[in-house]
Amino acid sequence: DEATSGILDRLLTYGPETAGGMMTTRFLALERSTRVSEAISRIRGEPEAETAFYLYVVDAAGHLEGVVSLRQLVLARPDQELHAIMNSKVLRARADQPRAEVADLITRYKLLALPVVDAGSVLAGIVTVDDALDAMADETTREMYRMAGLNTEDSVTSTARDSVRRRLGWMLINLGTAVLASWVVWFFEGTIAKVVALATFMPIVAGMGGNGATQALTVVIRGIAIGELEFSSAGRVIWKEILVGVSVGVVTGVVMAVIAFLWKGNPVMGLVICLAMIINLFVAGFAGAAIPIVLKWFQIDPAMGSGVIVTTFTDCFGFLSFLGIGTLLIRYLV
Amino acid sequence: DEATSGILDRLLTYGPETAGGMMTTRFLALERSTRVSEAISRIRGEPEAETAFYLYVVDAAGHLEGVVSLRQLVLARPDQELHAIMNSKVLRARADQPRAEVADLITRYKLLALPVVDAGSVLAGIVTVDDALDAMADETTREMYRMAGLNTEDSVTSTARDSVRRRLGWMLINLGTAVLASWVVWFFEGTIAKVVALATFMPIVAGMGGNGATQALTVVIRGIAIGELEFSSAGRVIWKEILVGVSVGVVTGVVMAVIAFLWKGNPVMGLVICLAMIINLFVAGFAGAAIPIVLKWFQIDPAMGSGVIVTTFTDCFGFLSFLGIGTLLIRYLV
Repeated sequence: DEATSGILDRLLTYGPETAGGMMTTRFLALERSTRVSEAISRIRGEPEAETAFYLYVVDAAGHLEGVVSLRQLVLARPDQELHAIMNSKVLRARADQPRAEVADLITRYKLLALPVVDAGSVLAGIVTVDDALDAMADETTREMYRMAGLNTEDSVTSTARDSVRRRLGWMLINLGTAVLASWVVWFFEGTIAKVVALATFMPIVAGMGGNGATQALTVVIRGIAIGELEFSSAGRVIWKEILVGVSVGVVTGVVMAVIAFLWKGNPVMGLVICLAMIINLFVAGFAGAAIPIVLKWFQIDPAMGSGVIVTTFTDCFGFLSFLGIGTLLIRYLV
Repeated sequence: DEATSGILDRLLTYGPETAGGMMTTRFLALERSTRVSEAISRIRGEPEAETAFYLYVVDAAGHLEGVVSLRQLVLARPDQELHAIMNSKVLRARADQPRAEVADLITRYKLLALPVVDAGSVLAGIVTVDDALDAMADETTREMYRMAGLNTEDSVTSTARDSVRRRLGWMLINLGTAVLASWVVWFFEGTIAKVVALATFMPIVAGMGGNGATQALTVVIRGIAIGELEFSSAGRVIWKEILVGVSVGVVTGVVMAVIAFLWKGNPVMGLVICLAMIINLFVAGFAGAAIPIVLKWFQIDPAMGSGVIVTTFTDCFGFLSFLGIGTLLIRYLV
């Protein structure tokens, strides 16, 4: 029908993830010289308008000039003209503006609706607060999906075939990074052949680094998403995450050193794993904080595949530090 | 001042994560026999009311009886009484209802405000849509934080000391699970001593399982959060994730088998790693889907520490399957 084809036209023009793609064209716009009494009877005549809480005021060519809330309309004299009561400083979105920015404007300024204008400043539609809520839920899903290396179309309702097709890409990339990490281990096969116990403790260093990096990553990605982290404070945040990583590394490293000593009866094994954990949690703090900031700097989604990227760092540096220190101190381990 | 102490009283009574804790008491409630003209002059007199887009209608004792939109008020005759034009089927929240449920009601029914009643059905306040937007952003942070084992107070603006204190708990739990995984490896030290190449490939099986499990986990946790996944479809979803895991395991396992064969020149090594990857991605699909569903069943937040829990499964089963199959086929590997 007509409504559907209108929506399709709009989406084809603007794309689903822009203000133009999410706006409705069922809004009320009246000319500046309209009287309040006339405006009220126009509302009566359009029960379908998506939000009758704001009236938009336009000139003869449709350019957005101001906004009148229904509250102002109720409180005005019936013979006043709209331009006399309208608020002419009206926040607006461009039709090609990204959906996330539109949701952010509506949230920040606590709006019920935001007018959308085309390239010529002509009022083209409105985005209502419930569309912003939907967009926010979508953006959240996107952020979590991208951290995990998931296609944003994936969901519990997708068929298995579609999910496999959508997940294979990142899993193959992850396989590549895993081969890289195993190449580091391969480099130390001679050491492992002499001290097999190193193979036993290897996963602990990598696993703790991966977990620490995921914590730093999650805090930094949320900080970017909710606007708490600006580039100006990036250095301070990276430095803080390094401090946190090293501190957590010292505490958990000492605990693990005691466990390793009790298990293997060799204090040097405890020392090797403790040092490697501290180094790897240093790497975890640095990579977990710096990678999303660098992605953002290059205007790439900071969450994009970041989980896979940071664990590549912590796997490689974890094995390198643990097996490297083990090789240096091998005379005390055999 | 008075406003602040009112907020404090309310928070002490209801807690910050309930409807009572997020509501405002600056709303407009009028008795059912009020005339439309009188209601309009009352609006004029209360420019401070948080939302003048809805008027709530109460009886003499303050019980919520209905709602009138400003739009209905504009369109009514001045001498009509509110009960004649009000909508008496009005959605409401209980003051002790969790914040997430309130945000969900506002989103689902596209409301601008939701009235909150106390235990005696007396109108106590309203929650506006912008409060729901704030609550949603908070709940999102919580969900992502819990997956990563983070305290919800943590942020890029916390001091390093606070972040260390908040993260140590889950990191020590993670250390415990990592020791469990290394205990599985220790069990096979004899095998590794004979075939050191197994140590090289070990991280690949565990890493791929961990990544596959994180993907399944993220999809299922989002499915629960946005209401796409009910307990009635839990079996189907778990089965689907197992299918996806096994399929991804077959494809990436075959690729890795070829790499291992080219690297080590032994086709049996390729076979061992391929089989272990398929088994571990089976475990990843099962654990990634089943663990949040089981947590939800026991009314625990499905995201709570789920990242740490599922990777414990994939680490332990990854090492068990890879080193177990390696031990069975050891005569073809040495």
